[in-house]
Amino acid sequence: MKLDEYMFQKVIIIEDELERLLPDEEIQPSTLHESMRYTTFLGGKRIRPVMMLAIGEIFKAETAPILTGAAAIEMLHSSSLILDDLPCMDDATLRRGQKTNHLIFGEDIAILAGFGLMNLAFKAVNDLHKEQSVPLKRIVEVVQQLNYAIGTEGLIGGQTMDLEGEGKTLTFKDLEFIHSRKTGALFNAAGQIACILSGASDKDRTAIELYTKNLGLAFQVVDDVLDVTADEKVLGKDAEKDTDKTTFVSFSSIDEAKKVAEELVEFSIEAVQRYGKKADILVQLANFVKDREM
Amino acid sequence: MKLDEYMFQKVIIIEDELERLLPDEEIQPSTLHESMRYTTFLGGKRIRPVMMLAIGEIFKAETAPILTGAAAIEMLHSSSLILDDLPCMDDATLRRGQKTNHLIFGEDIAILAGFGLMNLAFKAVNDLHKEQSVPLKRIVEVVQQLNYAIGTEGLIGGQTMDLEGEGKTLTFKDLEFIHSRKTGALFNAAGQIACILSGASDKDRTAIELYTKNLGLAFQVVDDVLDVTADEKVLGKDAEKDTDKTTFVSFSSIDEAKKVAEELVEFSIEAVQRYGKKADILVQLANFVKDREM
Repeated sequence: MKLDEYMFQKVIIIEDELERLLPDEEIQPSTLHESMRYTTFLGGKRIRPVMMLAIGEIFKAETAPILTGAAAIEMLHSSSLILDDLPCMDDATLRRGQKTNHLIFGEDIAILAGFGLMNLAFKAVNDLHKEQSVPLKRIVEVVQQLNYAIGTEGLIGGQTMDLEGEGKTLTFKDLEFIHSRKTGALFNAAGQIACILSGASDKDRTAIELYTKNLGLAFQVVDDVLDVTADEKVLGKDAEKDTDKTTFVSFSSIDEAKKVAEELVEFSIEAVQRYGKKADILVQLANFVKDREM
Repeated sequence: MKLDEYMFQKVIIIEDELERLLPDEEIQPSTLHESMRYTTFLGGKRIRPVMMLAIGEIFKAETAPILTGAAAIEMLHSSSLILDDLPCMDDATLRRGQKTNHLIFGEDIAILAGFGLMNLAFKAVNDLHKEQSVPLKRIVEVVQQLNYAIGTEGLIGGQTMDLEGEGKTLTFKDLEFIHSRKTGALFNAAGQIACILSGASDKDRTAIELYTKNLGLAFQVVDDVLDVTADEKVLGKDAEKDTDKTTFVSFSSIDEAKKVAEELVEFSIEAVQRYGKKADILVQLANFVKDREM
């Protein structure tokens, strides 16, 4: 199947699952729930959840639990976007072509919505036992992946280093450290959670890890390139926001950075070569990350 | 044993457990870890964790897992204090006689520390299987309690309603709604988590629930009274911060509010009467909540 068709189909069921898990706007406190839904349904590409469903298919796993895990990852991702955009962080006005969360709901509600989404991600996964009879052992392993993706080695650690790096000259190693956390950790957790909920073997988990680690880094390099080259309208967020910051483009020309992204994508494709035709969507997804324009 | 002696002993082991669970300041990103530790070790009364250990003793439970659960509750509590104090929320300058977290570390790091503490609370509980062989079923139940205490029915929901209520005239019912969430939910989760980790029966869980629900509300009524009557120096936080807000004292004289707190404490003591001498610490703790001056 062509990737765009696959993504189109999967995004529908992913959004249905998010719809099921997020509290209704009619329920009090409705402003909080509106704010949580706003960023979650801002029309992201849903790359991580689509990837998770594609991994599940390789291992012939049941779809429903992976769909819930995928929604949890997407809620965490939304939570981190709300935080990153805050005035005291990146002070962004645009996200996916729309006003950022705090500009609509105020900083206070935006922060609480971020916490609410993080809490809901844990809840969605924890309820997998009661609601979908997922073995308890797997749930504990999935929560462990979430903890790792959020914590010092993940989103929060990466964001802290990123903030502290502003106005300073960073080395390529510093930058890799930041991005392996800010982008890499969530990509990796997404892959591992799909594996755990599929009952994949350790060997398979290692292959998927290699795929997600390279793809996550490629994603960030492309992000940095787009930040310099893309139009704000196409990008849907404040372009050139990062010009005073060290990015991957600070170390190389645009063309060289593109070359790095290509190599990383090649590595990720190699990692899933062993699954042959079954990895077709993962291969297309990796190429999509490289070629994306927004 | 007299309560003050009991608290003195227990606070030591609770702080040791927090020390064990919180990432070291030497580990990168150290500012984040410093910020997480700052509010956690600001010298709170540790009422919730002390209460949890006392509940565990009634049911002759093993101490170690409850101690970890108690630390998780305390980390969540610290996380909520950091958020509540932010400029976009209560804009507080003092907390336990010291500068609030964001005044020392900046808003960005303070927010990330709040997220970090929440993540760590889930991690501490989730690791109870691997580290202390707590049955998986119990862990999933404990996480469920944390989810509930944080979410719409808990801290986040209560804080949202509180913020939305500012400048408006609230009814007594509104106020009860807010406080059952802001203070009550965490007290209640603390009690239930101690029960779950003790393997307490449903009947026991109901008794403890009655105890914590009344005590949590009493705690908040006393807080409102102290906010009007206490000296900032004794209180250790910005006194009269809440004068433009509806509080329990808005509906009654100080003496009447004190009377309500006394009644609530009586109810909580009645709820644990069935345990006789074994509930002695819980009874003393309830009286302490009523008589506290800070």
